[in-house]
Amino acid sequence: MDSIDKLTEIFKSFPGIGPRQAKRFVYFLLTRNRNYLREFTSLVNELQNEIIICQECFRYFTKGKQVTPLCDICGSKNRDENVLMIVARDIDLENIEKSHYFNGKYFVLGGTVPILDKNPETKIHLNELLKTVEKKAEKELKEIILGFSVNPESEYTADFIIQALNPLITKYNLKISHLGRGLSTGTELEYSDTDTIKNALKNRS
Amino acid sequence: MDSIDKLTEIFKSFPGIGPRQAKRFVYFLLTRNRNYLREFTSLVNELQNEIIICQECFRYFTKGKQVTPLCDICGSKNRDENVLMIVARDIDLENIEKSHYFNGKYFVLGGTVPILDKNPETKIHLNELLKTVEKKAEKELKEIILGFSVNPESEYTADFIIQALNPLITKYNLKISHLGRGLSTGTELEYSDTDTIKNALKNRS
Amino acid sequence: MDSIDKLTEIFKSFPGIGPRQAKRFVYFLLTRNRNYLREFTSLVNELQNEIIICQECFRYFTKGKQVTPLCDICGSKNRDENVLMIVARDIDLENIEKSHYFNGKYFVLGGTVPILDKNPETKIHLNELLKTVEKKAEKELKEIILGFSVNPESEYTADFIIQALNPLITKYNLKISHLGRGLSTGTELEYSDTDTIKNALKNRS
Amino acid sequence: MDSIDKLTEIFKSFPGIGPRQAKRFVYFLLTRNRNYLREFTSLVNELQNEIIICQECFRYFTKGKQVTPLCDICGSKNRDENVLMIVARDIDLENIEKSHYFNGKYFVLGGTVPILDKNPETKIHLNELLKTVEKKAEKELKEIILGFSVNPESEYTADFIIQALNPLITKYNLKISHLGRGLSTGTELEYSDTDTIKNALKNRS
Repeated sequence: MDSIDKLTEIFKSFPGIGPRQAKRFVYFLLTRNRNYLREFTSLVNELQNEIIICQECFRYFTKGKQVTPLCDICGSKNRDENVLMIVARDIDLENIEKSHYFNGKYFVLGGTVPILDKNPETKIHLNELLKTVEKKAEKELKEIILGFSVNPESEYTADFIIQALNPLITKYNLKISHLGRGLSTGTELEYSDTDTIKNALKNRS
Repeated sequence: MDSIDKLTEIFKSFPGIGPRQAKRFVYFLLTRNRNYLREFTSLVNELQNEIIICQECFRYFTKGKQVTPLCDICGSKNRDENVLMIVARDIDLENIEKSHYFNGKYFVLGGTVPILDKNPETKIHLNELLKTVEKKAEKELKEIILGFSVNPESEYTADFIIQALNPLITKYNLKISHLGRGLSTGTELEYSDTDTIKNALKNRS
Repeated sequence: MDSIDKLTEIFKSFPGIGPRQAKRFVYFLLTRNRNYLREFTSLVNELQNEIIICQECFRYFTKGKQVTPLCDICGSKNRDENVLMIVARDIDLENIEKSHYFNGKYFVLGGTVPILDKNPETKIHLNELLKTVEKKAEKELKEIILGFSVNPESEYTADFIIQALNPLITKYNLKISHLGRGLSTGTELEYSDTDTIKNALKNRS
Repeated sequence: MDSIDKLTEIFKSFPGIGPRQAKRFVYFLLTRNRNYLREFTSLVNELQNEIIICQECFRYFTKGKQVTPLCDICGSKNRDENVLMIVARDIDLENIEKSHYFNGKYFVLGGTVPILDKNPETKIHLNELLKTVEKKAEKELKEIILGFSVNPESEYTADFIIQALNPLITKYNLKISHLGRGLSTGTELEYSDTDTIKNALKNRS
């Protein structure tokens, strides 16, 4: 295996990339100039130095000149400390931030728990979540929103999280809520599944 | 134009059918036997004789031996007379019925109103709706659910219907509700639009 | 099952139509006026009266006022009697005619033979083909072109046809040819399969 | 713009990658360990050191311990020196090699010429092609195969190349050939365009 094949193998491990596109990427890089490649590899190398993980919400963020290892959301004094939304991935957090409709704090699990997984605590930041929730519950936290997508693995993860949080929920009398279910933008009634119709009826307003 | 071309033209007017598939349909029919074709055309002819439009909800249904011109839902005594759901098309009603989560009555508009349409009342059963609502409001009707898909034309239609119903809403103190908005089955948080996130947060529970 | 369900079942048997679209077709027909439906069913009924099968090439065509049961191509004196192209379906013949690059005669098999089928002669007009070829070979026929798509079932059919024609090929010294293989419009070299590359190289010019 | 955004921008320049997938790549890299990232960036950096461009056919290849700057195909004594196939990209060459049906030599243009482009010689290795062809024509070269995909830009490039090669074609009496056209694997006669049918008929055999 030469460098072309080895690099093709690495690109094949990228999410959503098959063997053909992986090879196209390699040939694409072959035709770039030195500056492009140097910038590319130095940015990849910088990722692990410049990007650190927030010690409160566990999202990735650019270190900058901050003294505390907290991201801009966790470090902000203008966010509502009463509400914490637990999301699976950084990219979910980013999309919710873009909507400008949530002003609470977040916790990023770093993934979801595969159904019937034997070591779920190794797939997500579970201990870190418990610590963060306890710390916040001792102050102002009142509600935890489970901010998950709607699919079996996400629902399994939500159930798993609720169970793990149960002692803290009882101890601090925390409210647990799920994102509302119903028709989303673009939903056609004609093609909606039973669950969506049930939720759309239940949550009518 | 021979029969093949003429029949191809008609199939081209079917929803979602282009010229190639229209022609395939004709050649498909050419290879069917007489019994198949006879059954096909007699069923099409029967449609207008056997299928009538319900004089209360305006959905299509098979006449059968009934004396009153009402469909099985409108004729039923086991449905909740307090709630009326207005839907755009028969096929929406059918899908909601399949969910078994709604036990009220329906009204089928027969379509939606195109945005800025000059004669909206010609596109939908508007007068019939007003009559049906008034009749029901004089008895037990308390809530009208707008059972529409989530797209601009459906939302325009909902607004138009509310305005048209306004005098009756006031007169009989009716509650108007929309189907709940939020995450539907399969929704990925990462790709949700701002509106869906807003509604999912607002309707959290 | 009422007429709506029965007609939905029939539309489901149409090529490429699933249950949802079948039902849409029925509701579409329900909203057509009487004239549309009358024209539709009378055209379907006419198919079997006005459209007959050519006794030479076995394609379907509109009878018209002709005395002989031959289609316009078989009845024409301006077509090259030296060449006969065997195709699977009427729709293949039509597409080749549209190209205006073939001026010989045709024979429509009426389908292809499924691989390992036990009664291939019941799937296609085999005896009719043998008769038509013998009749034409006694006059001017010199070449038979196998005008088939490129997929396993078509190639199996081509082999089957050659074997069946073999005695006539020998007796009349007929030339058998296949449509040329190689790159077709839109083919990307990067994605071509081995067979196509082999043929493109062999048939280079 | 932080490293995440900058790296997202670079991935967006990769062929076929939009903003969402670009960002997924970055988050994917964020969750890789140091070894993965180190191997990734060192392979990218090696590309320009280990991968060199063959001075005869202008394809990319791994340098290895060779003394001459020729790839394994150009350096091989078992390839047919009579035939040279000109292809647009390395990936075309690779796919043709995989078919094992071509045993001649290659020349990789490095791209195609956009239609009506003002400086076509800057888009492809034109001068290098002329030198390679002249050098080979002085020895054993007899035929040049234009190994291009079938689309307008490729056909424009083929015409451009023929014109540029014209003096050498005349001087050395070279044969110019195109890859054969016709039905390719999977082609359906029913959907073939006029050009493909014309070529399939012309190249029948």
